[in-house]
Amino acid sequence: MDVRAAVAFEAGKPLEIETVQLEGPREGEVLVEIKATGLCHTDKFTLSGADPEGLFPAILGHEGAGIVREVGAGVKHLKPGDHVIPLYTPECRECKSCLSQKTNLCTSIRATQGKGLMPDGTSRFSFKGQPIHHYMGCSTFANFTVLPEIALAKVREDAPFDKICYIGCGVTTGIGAVIFTAKVEPNSTVAVFGLGGIGLNVIQGAKLVGAEKIIGVDINPAREEMARKFGMTHFVNPKDLPDGDVVGRIIELTGGGADYTFECVGNTTLMRQALECAHRGWGVSTVIGVAGAGQEISTRPFQLVTGRRWIGSAFGGARGRTDVPKIVDWYMENRINIDDLITHKLPLEKINEGFDMMTRGESIRTVVEF
Amino acid sequence: MDVRAAVAFEAGKPLEIETVQLEGPREGEVLVEIKATGLCHTDKFTLSGADPEGLFPAILGHEGAGIVREVGAGVKHLKPGDHVIPLYTPECRECKSCLSQKTNLCTSIRATQGKGLMPDGTSRFSFKGQPIHHYMGCSTFANFTVLPEIALAKVREDAPFDKICYIGCGVTTGIGAVIFTAKVEPNSTVAVFGLGGIGLNVIQGAKLVGAEKIIGVDINPAREEMARKFGMTHFVNPKDLPDGDVVGRIIELTGGGADYTFECVGNTTLMRQALECAHRGWGVSTVIGVAGAGQEISTRPFQLVTGRRWIGSAFGGARGRTDVPKIVDWYMENRINIDDLITHKLPLEKINEGFDMMTRGESIRTVVEF
Repeated sequence: MDVRAAVAFEAGKPLEIETVQLEGPREGEVLVEIKATGLCHTDKFTLSGADPEGLFPAILGHEGAGIVREVGAGVKHLKPGDHVIPLYTPECRECKSCLSQKTNLCTSIRATQGKGLMPDGTSRFSFKGQPIHHYMGCSTFANFTVLPEIALAKVREDAPFDKICYIGCGVTTGIGAVIFTAKVEPNSTVAVFGLGGIGLNVIQGAKLVGAEKIIGVDINPAREEMARKFGMTHFVNPKDLPDGDVVGRIIELTGGGADYTFECVGNTTLMRQALECAHRGWGVSTVIGVAGAGQEISTRPFQLVTGRRWIGSAFGGARGRTDVPKIVDWYMENRINIDDLITHKLPLEKINEGFDMMTRGESIRTVVEF
Repeated sequence: MDVRAAVAFEAGKPLEIETVQLEGPREGEVLVEIKATGLCHTDKFTLSGADPEGLFPAILGHEGAGIVREVGAGVKHLKPGDHVIPLYTPECRECKSCLSQKTNLCTSIRATQGKGLMPDGTSRFSFKGQPIHHYMGCSTFANFTVLPEIALAKVREDAPFDKICYIGCGVTTGIGAVIFTAKVEPNSTVAVFGLGGIGLNVIQGAKLVGAEKIIGVDINPAREEMARKFGMTHFVNPKDLPDGDVVGRIIELTGGGADYTFECVGNTTLMRQALECAHRGWGVSTVIGVAGAGQEISTRPFQLVTGRRWIGSAFGGARGRTDVPKIVDWYMENRINIDDLITHKLPLEKINEGFDMMTRGESIRTVVEF
């Protein structure tokens, strides 16, 4: 079938809106009509060419929501008409990782997904007869896409696509890191490095679980107002500190260090600061941001020996099919705020404008509606 | 009173056996007759001058066992005749750390202990009228010493001093890291870097909790036999690997990485290897070894984002007054083996020979009996 897509033909070039061909779903696969998709920094990172694992040509996009239109043979849990959120971290419930009950990082289709292919090793997308790569197993920058059944979370039908698409990545990544990865307890102190979309979601996650003190750190003073709206209680702008000592300031504000800290930027210097301002004895520092290729984090091992814990989170530690529907419920019950985070909406034809706004730091989240 | 002690007068010089003066216990303090003490790498590290926090002159030693001979005013839980193990990590049960129930790193007397002084800011030891520093709050290289009540674990009276003194540091550090810090579960896979005293205790801790596979890593082939006796199931000598790829070998042996890894050397390169051979998704790597001053650990943050956890352990995460008596029980019930780890015994006069054997790697543990 013909589908309308924003195609990444080459690294470093704008996306091009084209009509491409999509094959129907094979065994275990599902055809989804994408109704809305968010634009994420990860898409931009890959498009820029900085992602060493980036493949071209590809249809990017991994933060979508839509409706099942057709299912392949053997699909058991979905039927046409079901509302779904694509999962770049699938949940097969059968692999060693899923069965461990200790991680959300399902490995069942990791090898082919990393190659931009469906689990059978082929692509469903093509343009002028040449295959186009899938991206993160999702490719939501197209009005139709095909995914394995295990990479789709079924969600309630009264939830608006243009909001819940954001649960497909940013919302879950931030809130999940608090709830599923770090397991922040009520009355904890929390420090959040970076107040972009992920950081704001970490903040509302911390508020949701009853954190007592939520400190936000950003060099952009314009972030303060929004962050306070989401639950931030203290703002630290490193540029306003005479000595630039963010770690010292957070230790001072928390009386010894934060119980939980989160790095939401992808900056290895901030990752170190986030670890070192965690409380001696029990502070847990969670890396969420994705650093540039080859970059490394460092610290003195004394920081760990004296009880700080350095961990990371991918997709918020959420098991997609199990947890994403719950987060949709939280949104529908007004327990979390997504509406204020979606600062811009665009039609597919203007998708490159969305990435330009992201580059200029003007948007929290831009959503493309089909 | 006059006491017999091995005194560290200067960094880099041998200990000198002298008669020094010891004042009696003040409020909240206890006079202990030390019956036996182990010689630990940490004593050697401080004596060498490499420890930036080392103070001289001092009476070193922190791994002892003895009998209470006198108690100061206000001492509630100990009386003359009680058998005790000194605790360089005290347990006051009143400070923020103790009350957190999340760490064993009691902070109640940390400031003075770090300065080589009793909690009231003075020393009980002197030589020719000049004060001598306490060390790690213990100073067990003397046949009598004074400690705060909160820094003494009361233990059963039928346990032999020349064995249980080792529970004051090495045994608890190794076994505790497994049980209290990492919380290794039955049927886990475990990798242990460094098969000295700490590594062997990690191995027997892993065996005690029912680990399925226990891999030991050491460049000294002579360590293999003893480690197997303690429960090691697989031995990896990096020098025997054609490519030296220890991480790859452990991932191969465990089918994807070890569930729990422990660094027991203090080598930052091994700390990185120990993290990176932990299983994707859930592997926990615990730093036990103490690195040299200023040394740093590094890795790509991707290692954390994909689910590995980097943590550390001090005194095995054990709360001394609560957990040390239990470990003494485990020894008395033959659940753990200490006897085979104590390879040498010496009188105080020969204490420097013990450090020489340690330097040459000939001993696991040398115990001095008074």
